[in-house]
Amino acid sequence: MITASIIGSSGYGGGELLRLLLAHPCVEVKQVTSRSHLGEYVYQVHPNLRKRTQLKFSDPAALEPVDVLFLAQPHGQAQHHIAEYAKLAPRIVDLSADFRLRDAAFYEQWYGEKHAAPEWLSRFVYGLPELHREELKSASYISGVGCNATASNLALLPLIKSDLLDPLSPIFIEIKVGSSEGGAEGNSGSLHAERANVIRTFSAFGHRHTAEVIQEMGVNASRVSLTMTAVDLVRGALATAHAKVKQGVVTKDLWKAYRAVANENPFVRVVKEQRGIYRVPEPKILAGTNYADLGFELDESNGHIVSMCAIDNLMKGACGSAVQCMNLMMGWDEAMGLEFMGLHPI
Amino acid sequence: MITASIIGSSGYGGGELLRLLLAHPCVEVKQVTSRSHLGEYVYQVHPNLRKRTQLKFSDPAALEPVDVLFLAQPHGQAQHHIAEYAKLAPRIVDLSADFRLRDAAFYEQWYGEKHAAPEWLSRFVYGLPELHREELKSASYISGVGCNATASNLALLPLIKSDLLDPLSPIFIEIKVGSSEGGAEGNSGSLHAERANVIRTFSAFGHRHTAEVIQEMGVNASRVSLTMTAVDLVRGALATAHAKVKQGVVTKDLWKAYRAVANENPFVRVVKEQRGIYRVPEPKILAGTNYADLGFELDESNGHIVSMCAIDNLMKGACGSAVQCMNLMMGWDEAMGLEFMGLHPI
Amino acid sequence: MITASIIGSSGYGGGELLRLLLAHPCVEVKQVTSRSHLGEYVYQVHPNLRKRTQLKFSDPAALEPVDVLFLAQPHGQAQHHIAEYAKLAPRIVDLSADFRLRDAAFYEQWYGEKHAAPEWLSRFVYGLPELHREELKSASYISGVGCNATASNLALLPLIKSDLLDPLSPIFIEIKVGSSEGGAEGNSGSLHAERANVIRTFSAFGHRHTAEVIQEMGVNASRVSLTMTAVDLVRGALATAHAKVKQGVVTKDLWKAYRAVANENPFVRVVKEQRGIYRVPEPKILAGTNYADLGFELDESNGHIVSMCAIDNLMKGACGSAVQCMNLMMGWDEAMGLEFMGLHPI
Amino acid sequence: MITASIIGSSGYGGGELLRLLLAHPCVEVKQVTSRSHLGEYVYQVHPNLRKRTQLKFSDPAALEPVDVLFLAQPHGQAQHHIAEYAKLAPRIVDLSADFRLRDAAFYEQWYGEKHAAPEWLSRFVYGLPELHREELKSASYISGVGCNATASNLALLPLIKSDLLDPLSPIFIEIKVGSSEGGAEGNSGSLHAERANVIRTFSAFGHRHTAEVIQEMGVNASRVSLTMTAVDLVRGALATAHAKVKQGVVTKDLWKAYRAVANENPFVRVVKEQRGIYRVPEPKILAGTNYADLGFELDESNGHIVSMCAIDNLMKGACGSAVQCMNLMMGWDEAMGLEFMGLHPI
Repeated sequence: MITASIIGSSGYGGGELLRLLLAHPCVEVKQVTSRSHLGEYVYQVHPNLRKRTQLKFSDPAALEPVDVLFLAQPHGQAQHHIAEYAKLAPRIVDLSADFRLRDAAFYEQWYGEKHAAPEWLSRFVYGLPELHREELKSASYISGVGCNATASNLALLPLIKSDLLDPLSPIFIEIKVGSSEGGAEGNSGSLHAERANVIRTFSAFGHRHTAEVIQEMGVNASRVSLTMTAVDLVRGALATAHAKVKQGVVTKDLWKAYRAVANENPFVRVVKEQRGIYRVPEPKILAGTNYADLGFELDESNGHIVSMCAIDNLMKGACGSAVQCMNLMMGWDEAMGLEFMGLHPI
Repeated sequence: MITASIIGSSGYGGGELLRLLLAHPCVEVKQVTSRSHLGEYVYQVHPNLRKRTQLKFSDPAALEPVDVLFLAQPHGQAQHHIAEYAKLAPRIVDLSADFRLRDAAFYEQWYGEKHAAPEWLSRFVYGLPELHREELKSASYISGVGCNATASNLALLPLIKSDLLDPLSPIFIEIKVGSSEGGAEGNSGSLHAERANVIRTFSAFGHRHTAEVIQEMGVNASRVSLTMTAVDLVRGALATAHAKVKQGVVTKDLWKAYRAVANENPFVRVVKEQRGIYRVPEPKILAGTNYADLGFELDESNGHIVSMCAIDNLMKGACGSAVQCMNLMMGWDEAMGLEFMGLHPI
Repeated sequence: MITASIIGSSGYGGGELLRLLLAHPCVEVKQVTSRSHLGEYVYQVHPNLRKRTQLKFSDPAALEPVDVLFLAQPHGQAQHHIAEYAKLAPRIVDLSADFRLRDAAFYEQWYGEKHAAPEWLSRFVYGLPELHREELKSASYISGVGCNATASNLALLPLIKSDLLDPLSPIFIEIKVGSSEGGAEGNSGSLHAERANVIRTFSAFGHRHTAEVIQEMGVNASRVSLTMTAVDLVRGALATAHAKVKQGVVTKDLWKAYRAVANENPFVRVVKEQRGIYRVPEPKILAGTNYADLGFELDESNGHIVSMCAIDNLMKGACGSAVQCMNLMMGWDEAMGLEFMGLHPI
Repeated sequence: MITASIIGSSGYGGGELLRLLLAHPCVEVKQVTSRSHLGEYVYQVHPNLRKRTQLKFSDPAALEPVDVLFLAQPHGQAQHHIAEYAKLAPRIVDLSADFRLRDAAFYEQWYGEKHAAPEWLSRFVYGLPELHREELKSASYISGVGCNATASNLALLPLIKSDLLDPLSPIFIEIKVGSSEGGAEGNSGSLHAERANVIRTFSAFGHRHTAEVIQEMGVNASRVSLTMTAVDLVRGALATAHAKVKQGVVTKDLWKAYRAVANENPFVRVVKEQRGIYRVPEPKILAGTNYADLGFELDESNGHIVSMCAIDNLMKGACGSAVQCMNLMMGWDEAMGLEFMGLHPI
């Protein structure tokens, strides 16, 4: 049994993380902070936690030492306080974007400002077990993952790992996302009457999560693009990656590559059915789970591959992966506390 | 560790029950049957179960003895086979409407046909722990509950139990429900393009679940009505009961009555907040949980009480209560396997 | 051809009104004002108007005289400026709540503050043609209607008009509403991730629109209540009124009463079918139309009547009625410019 | 004033067409047929038409001669009866896929069966005014358009017309669609509980509408693909086309090309705003309108163009274009009867 606290826990990521830690058999949650909800019961903000915890939001200034400290603040904050936080806990998992990129110049290029703690970048391991399981086992500092980056990286993983892509082909990734990605603050376009029923391509290029795809997949920046479309759903993201496979690659090769990834990773599944309603990866049935469902279709006539990855953006795309990383870091079963199967219908 | 099988498990109730039993620490699922999906993997119908079980749907004729047999068939079937089923298992939990009513004449009145096994009616205990906890502990045969009846009964329970209602006042219960209540078969009105965006009062009076409210709450049939309105949601039901309290009853009396019910029942919560977004019971945050959230408002000027109960119709309104009943029947902690807290946002 | 301007036209009501006036064959829209969007094209706020008008939002201080002035400001503003506005136009239609109630004390009771222009209250005619057609024909000042009041009043109209209700029975009106009722400003609960999938009874009693039901239906305040529930829909409201009919009233009497109202009013329809998907009034198919669809069910065994009225809250519940009133005031066909039939499916 | 009848009018396309023709100032609807709903009032199936028409569905065998005959049957039927139909009317507009492709072999390749009336293919003009306005003016036989083909063709039109695309670059078109595309019959996956909340890529390649893109845009079959994803919406489709522009093409060139198309076509608009909520084409605000909203983004660093087209699949993608074609064929203003602006919010 270890102790853990969460800094910045009134947002969607913080709430989801708290839900997972409260249910985790080896973690005792000590403190959760929120300046705007100071003194309120956490269940007044996260109503699903009613009757499950009597925790109240506390002041970040009053944080006590713990075994693992989780940071769930808006981007751009953790880098200013990381040294202090490191005094509070020997292990830190940061959900924000502050320590995801390895290179300070690359960070500046994508985030438009100098990194405030560049010397810390190399101490963090990128928090996606499917990419860095071994490093995570010995890590002390773990970054979070971008949800859209995760859906993209996992859609590409079998193709990159088995070296099946034509190295010159562009990679166009179309990502459809739910409204929880916008966070608990939202903006005028997040109002239900404006956001309901949308198919809104709010970012054709240049989404910051692209940087994580470039870094983690090792693809050239000019070759890959993420196009983001908001659809009417709260939780969930589906990445559909379009590219060309190398000459000669056939469907059988793809099956082998995808199955290999699924076999190595407890939370990756391949969904490619010939019958029934659910033949392809779909985010809706993943709500609350840590699964990444992968699927693909190959047009053998021209080598066009469509690779899909569905996730719950708040779970595998954020908090689920963070808990999975903590499990690895602690030497525990990586699936511990992440057993929820998801609902059908939903 | 006990063994359990489910008859009729390709529908929504059967799938949900299977999900719960697969996660239950003391149950081993032996067989699940489906004639229409015979031989298919259960995850081809219930895609959330992929990578969690390799079970296939088997033939009901090939059922083997188990410790507990769950019946999840359409209404009107179990009563024709109950004697056979009883040979397969010493304990039966039936989710259908066949054994919910105590009286064969009352059954005939509401279901329009003679009951095929009236002698079995008295052997079943009505499967709502909040009403029959003690009897359930010694039961061998347990009926399911109607989802709308459950939302109604729990909305009324504090008022009836503390005897706060004017005995002459009519009780109008308005129930808003999601589409999963319609089942996996559906009808022309269940098509997404017709069912999306609806506020459709499909039954003003006479819904069969009314019979369970009359029986369990002991109110006169002419006094109570359930009005059913379909809204755009998959899982969830909210019952809003309108009635008059006895002269002199004030808000403080109601707090006492509602808190008492919540204190006695692990899955009942009172939701009545003065701030925040979630001030009243709401089904959406209950998806996948076994909670019943209760709330109320009293107009002290005229004694009009509005009592609300929100549930997940497939959980507390069906399978969650069924598992809770099994736990009681087996002498286990009644919350075992029902720990999921629900999601926010969703 | 007359000229018209709209004060406060960046909100949902103002935008809807502008849409209707732009399409009206006898109206030329001169100015539309908005302080927050001053100088912007109206289609930047109301994207449906792109390529239909090159109007820009202008300053309310720069308003020029017109034949009809529409006020579409938030509640509580028009009463402070009504004298000035009256100098700009001989006819005024105010969509806000400021001039709906006839009595200043009654206004204060429901709105919690003294009315700023009580002498103007009697000059306004309540803007629901189904209740005040003849007066509207000779009116110069017309108030808007509350959307929930309108659904309630029209649900009750056939019963009140034909004097079919038991005078002692309470009238419980359950209203389910879409998110556009919350306005373009919204609040934290209006965020899509919080507002999607809701069944949220946000007001059990005391909604301000109740005052309009009391005034227009002539029922005692202690007898009637409106209970408001938000559901997942953008446009639309369904009022379901529960009451008791007088002894001896049968279904045939109700048919007569409802048909009479439908026959007298071009935008009232009775929906009570025995087959098909759409057997009862449903707001979704009314989006963009000025119809009020009425339906009813009577339990002859105990006199319980369920009366339903579905509307588009922005149309019959606000702007559609306003344009219909303008048509009557101008001596035109009252349906002019309101011909849109609505969509199916939607 | 001309007469028109519709064969096959109980489906979504037939109902939408009927709505448009009932509102059209120069058309009198004579008969609408439906075998399955024979004798029913059309408003029992299309509830929006209540109080607007007393038409009943009649027997196709009893059709009388008219000026224009509309065919709104399922695909594969019109080609078997076209000779008979041609005896009933001098002008035919067929909404089905039967006469969209010019070449019988090409039809067989995409539809998997020999065409039953290949000699008629050349008599039909493809019914998209943006592509064939002049031919349509002198046409007697007009085919419908595929909704997904229309969104794709209009997304590509400015690029193809101004010859801006790299001729070697693949064209990946991602289309997100609402449930009304599935038709009034639906399938098990169309059930609300399964179809709600989906992001379901039901067709990665090979959708039949691809043939119309190949034919109408003149692009090589191996170069273009349509990937279809179902999202939670009833009406609407957004096509997002990814391709590479020719070396040297900059944003200014694209503005010119898109504006040219918008200027030549009354129902095409360019949506590319720097502020506000609606900066890009969005189908939701197009419900019930005949608009096609176009937008684009160019990554000048690598020539990647994202071109978007939003439509209402039942309007510009089917019935709206059909009425627009009829208007052209009759020598009328092509916008007649298609004036509805659409709703905001919705």
